[in-house]
Amino acid sequence: MEAYKQVTRKSHPHDTVVQVRGVSIGDGSFTVIAGPCAVESREQLFATAQAVREAGATVLRGDAFKPRTSPYAFQGLKEEGLQLLAEAREAFDMPFVAEVLEPGDVELVASYADIIRVGTRNMSNYSLLQELGRSDKAVMLKRGFTATIDDWLTAAEYVYNEGNNNIILVERGIRTFETATRNTLDISAVPVVKQRSHLPVIVDPSHSGGHKYLVGPLAKAGLVVGAAGMMVDVHPNPSEAKVDGAQALLPEDFITLMGELQTLASATGVEVS
Amino acid sequence: MEAYKQVTRKSHPHDTVVQVRGVSIGDGSFTVIAGPCAVESREQLFATAQAVREAGATVLRGDAFKPRTSPYAFQGLKEEGLQLLAEAREAFDMPFVAEVLEPGDVELVASYADIIRVGTRNMSNYSLLQELGRSDKAVMLKRGFTATIDDWLTAAEYVYNEGNNNIILVERGIRTFETATRNTLDISAVPVVKQRSHLPVIVDPSHSGGHKYLVGPLAKAGLVVGAAGMMVDVHPNPSEAKVDGAQALLPEDFITLMGELQTLASATGVEVS
Amino acid sequence: MEAYKQVTRKSHPHDTVVQVRGVSIGDGSFTVIAGPCAVESREQLFATAQAVREAGATVLRGDAFKPRTSPYAFQGLKEEGLQLLAEAREAFDMPFVAEVLEPGDVELVASYADIIRVGTRNMSNYSLLQELGRSDKAVMLKRGFTATIDDWLTAAEYVYNEGNNNIILVERGIRTFETATRNTLDISAVPVVKQRSHLPVIVDPSHSGGHKYLVGPLAKAGLVVGAAGMMVDVHPNPSEAKVDGAQALLPEDFITLMGELQTLASATGVEVS
Amino acid sequence: MEAYKQVTRKSHPHDTVVQVRGVSIGDGSFTVIAGPCAVESREQLFATAQAVREAGATVLRGDAFKPRTSPYAFQGLKEEGLQLLAEAREAFDMPFVAEVLEPGDVELVASYADIIRVGTRNMSNYSLLQELGRSDKAVMLKRGFTATIDDWLTAAEYVYNEGNNNIILVERGIRTFETATRNTLDISAVPVVKQRSHLPVIVDPSHSGGHKYLVGPLAKAGLVVGAAGMMVDVHPNPSEAKVDGAQALLPEDFITLMGELQTLASATGVEVS
Repeated sequence: MEAYKQVTRKSHPHDTVVQVRGVSIGDGSFTVIAGPCAVESREQLFATAQAVREAGATVLRGDAFKPRTSPYAFQGLKEEGLQLLAEAREAFDMPFVAEVLEPGDVELVASYADIIRVGTRNMSNYSLLQELGRSDKAVMLKRGFTATIDDWLTAAEYVYNEGNNNIILVERGIRTFETATRNTLDISAVPVVKQRSHLPVIVDPSHSGGHKYLVGPLAKAGLVVGAAGMMVDVHPNPSEAKVDGAQALLPEDFITLMGELQTLASATGVEVS
Repeated sequence: MEAYKQVTRKSHPHDTVVQVRGVSIGDGSFTVIAGPCAVESREQLFATAQAVREAGATVLRGDAFKPRTSPYAFQGLKEEGLQLLAEAREAFDMPFVAEVLEPGDVELVASYADIIRVGTRNMSNYSLLQELGRSDKAVMLKRGFTATIDDWLTAAEYVYNEGNNNIILVERGIRTFETATRNTLDISAVPVVKQRSHLPVIVDPSHSGGHKYLVGPLAKAGLVVGAAGMMVDVHPNPSEAKVDGAQALLPEDFITLMGELQTLASATGVEVS
Repeated sequence: MEAYKQVTRKSHPHDTVVQVRGVSIGDGSFTVIAGPCAVESREQLFATAQAVREAGATVLRGDAFKPRTSPYAFQGLKEEGLQLLAEAREAFDMPFVAEVLEPGDVELVASYADIIRVGTRNMSNYSLLQELGRSDKAVMLKRGFTATIDDWLTAAEYVYNEGNNNIILVERGIRTFETATRNTLDISAVPVVKQRSHLPVIVDPSHSGGHKYLVGPLAKAGLVVGAAGMMVDVHPNPSEAKVDGAQALLPEDFITLMGELQTLASATGVEVS
Repeated sequence: MEAYKQVTRKSHPHDTVVQVRGVSIGDGSFTVIAGPCAVESREQLFATAQAVREAGATVLRGDAFKPRTSPYAFQGLKEEGLQLLAEAREAFDMPFVAEVLEPGDVELVASYADIIRVGTRNMSNYSLLQELGRSDKAVMLKRGFTATIDDWLTAAEYVYNEGNNNIILVERGIRTFETATRNTLDISAVPVVKQRSHLPVIVDPSHSGGHKYLVGPLAKAGLVVGAAGMMVDVHPNPSEAKVDGAQALLPEDFITLMGELQTLASATGVEVS
């Protein structure tokens, strides 16, 4: 018995395209998802959303529930954060993605978000995956930082098998012995996934490298290896960010990066959306 | 801000001893927890429980909920399995430990089990940890197969911080490049944890090595490095086990191993219980 | 005392440019090094050299000494291979790089090759590094597949400290738990090395991924993250290659890849040389 | 074609016993090899040799050539160190083991040492292995810190295939993501090697853990999993050791450890020699 079968190319040769409020992920374009790691306040969220929208991002990211390594760290604004994200969606006309941490919260998050994200620590939380498989919202599944590509596709199968086919995979770095980076972005995973599965795969250049200066190079690498998009942290004031400030781009850095990606994309016949 | 502080030796110099129905874990003795990986039937469970009890095990293991890599694999007998475990507890006078997979099931599992286990894939499932922190049952926390020792102690802090101090840590192997074993038992983790924390730590020689012939050597290694006990898979008919048969001991192998452990333990002044 | 100091940016802020028979590596262009993994015969070598030269490669690769995992595998043509490489250099006007396996062979290899390569298994062979440090030929230092970036730069320091400043670093993948690829190309290593050191760093998309279909994506990723070039295996008949055939490109695939790289390079203002 | 065949159990079912000046390694006893990491002076070496001999060690360790990560670190006393080791051998009646770093030094080291050691960084230095295969001295082959067990046995095959059958394998820890220890002692490797090969395998509890407090537990673990012995660093004044002081035992700690090992050994019918 194979560990996964419905998410394979063999069973479904054509690329899956995930449609979210007019944005298509997996149709050959490079979808840019950007925003703050965590929603901290209306000011912070709206300033960031406006900046990334103007620079060309089409999906907003921002979390209201944060899975923090330490119980003493900031845990997110919870439902208040989701409400702010929903307001930003209307204000800037961008669907948004937010993380869910446990099966009991799926209904709540789904009542606000357009795409529900499963974080790297929960990739093998099968009851959460099954609950999401019964949701009608798109699911974004980050690779566990110690998951093989086959483990990851098997996790996707848990969602798919319950009837939810709108799944976006995110390569976000794996745990290795190297300490110069937070994790090691497994750039090869993009072509490997594209060969094995019909699901769209994007890269996260922020959480993998863990340093601002690596975001640009890793984003470009994602584009040229054929990723369906990227998700990137932007913060108007990274040094005061409550979560992961070291890797967040300033809005002006993000604008520069978008210009560089546009150039690469034009050269290779890809549309940045 | 430190990621963990209450589970450190600094904050609590004396060893924590977890008491469960007359069994003490962490008091200097070597507690033997044994039973089938998954509860499959009354016959299988009772035959195994009787055998391990007679050979000297004091705690029964057996799972009713299985976190399987594939959605198409056997997922456990669920509540029926818990009922069988509770019957076996009475029949053989052994407390039992069983795994829980999601926060919503904590109440159910706690209504039957004496010790609730968090599996390796859920070690960073913080909402599950917090829910268990509010339970009055002892918690067994397996190390994530890609968790550093500090990650693991931080996960324990999540439980401890909610008020539940009865935590047993389980070293069960980490993911490395070596493929001769299922995972690499990090035997050094036992003395490292004992130096850093007051919580008892045991070893799992079955799931780490993944092969029957490794169980004996790894169990003995656990005893001599100072582990507070071990948890081992025993199955009356491993070749027909629905889960992880390759690593399960036959009852007669378990009896032999217990004899060897008794010899080592006597030599080193440890009691096997 | 720091492990390395002369190869750091701090001690030498400007990029080192390695000059080899009119080819400049590290001057902002993307240098393409291509050829067979091992020299097997004059026909095989010349056919490959001609094809890669016509497609735009400027440096020839080909090994005469092969460090094989098994003592029973093909070990290379030794001096005869070096002679063939020297003939190909004249015939196609390309400098060539070849591997050396032990200090005692440095003089021999240096008498033929333009660039002497240290393979991944020898990265920490300090006596070999020191011997190369006393050579007047450029040195190509592959990253050990389990070396951190700091280990690698320290190995470069061994060469540099003996007086040889012409060093080219090669990122060729690291050992991780992932098995879908032969090794995991650490694409982040390119920007990290460029920040820490003044030495040029190139990528090896052939040996890292281990599969032909990964060569193109990884080569492009190398170009856009700022690598100084790439080294790629090409073989006129990969299925009969004596070494590493699975990852070798056919000449026609190499031509296609060169076209794609030219397009990317033009868009980003880089020259492919 | 298999990567190794002569070192397998299949080709040679009985345990290889390596005989060195009256000491048998691999005969079922637990051979204790102890001494300073590096030879620093006559005083340091003789004080250590006397202490470890009196405590029951039968083989002396001490290096004259040190493979240091940094070119600026102490590199060893070279031939003078070998002379001191030879004098200590006579004074205390113990054969000694010393490391060799390159093929060109094999003859020199072999003219003094009883056992020639290949360090972890050189495990895949095939020309060194072949040179040692032609020596008449016993070879001690440390596992590369990123070598699989099969890689390691293949390296042994390189020595064996040249005609030298006197090989002792040393498990010394592998590189993993865990940072609490210098490396992760792969204790399972001992029973795995014993199943696959007829060569004796010992453990190095000093270099694996990297901390003095881990030496005792790891040494005991080695004994009970069936290792043929251990090699341990002892230094009369660890805080002033030129190499690896953090992990060296004081002579008095070594005496205590030897007592504990004797107790364990008696209980399990093993002789400590």
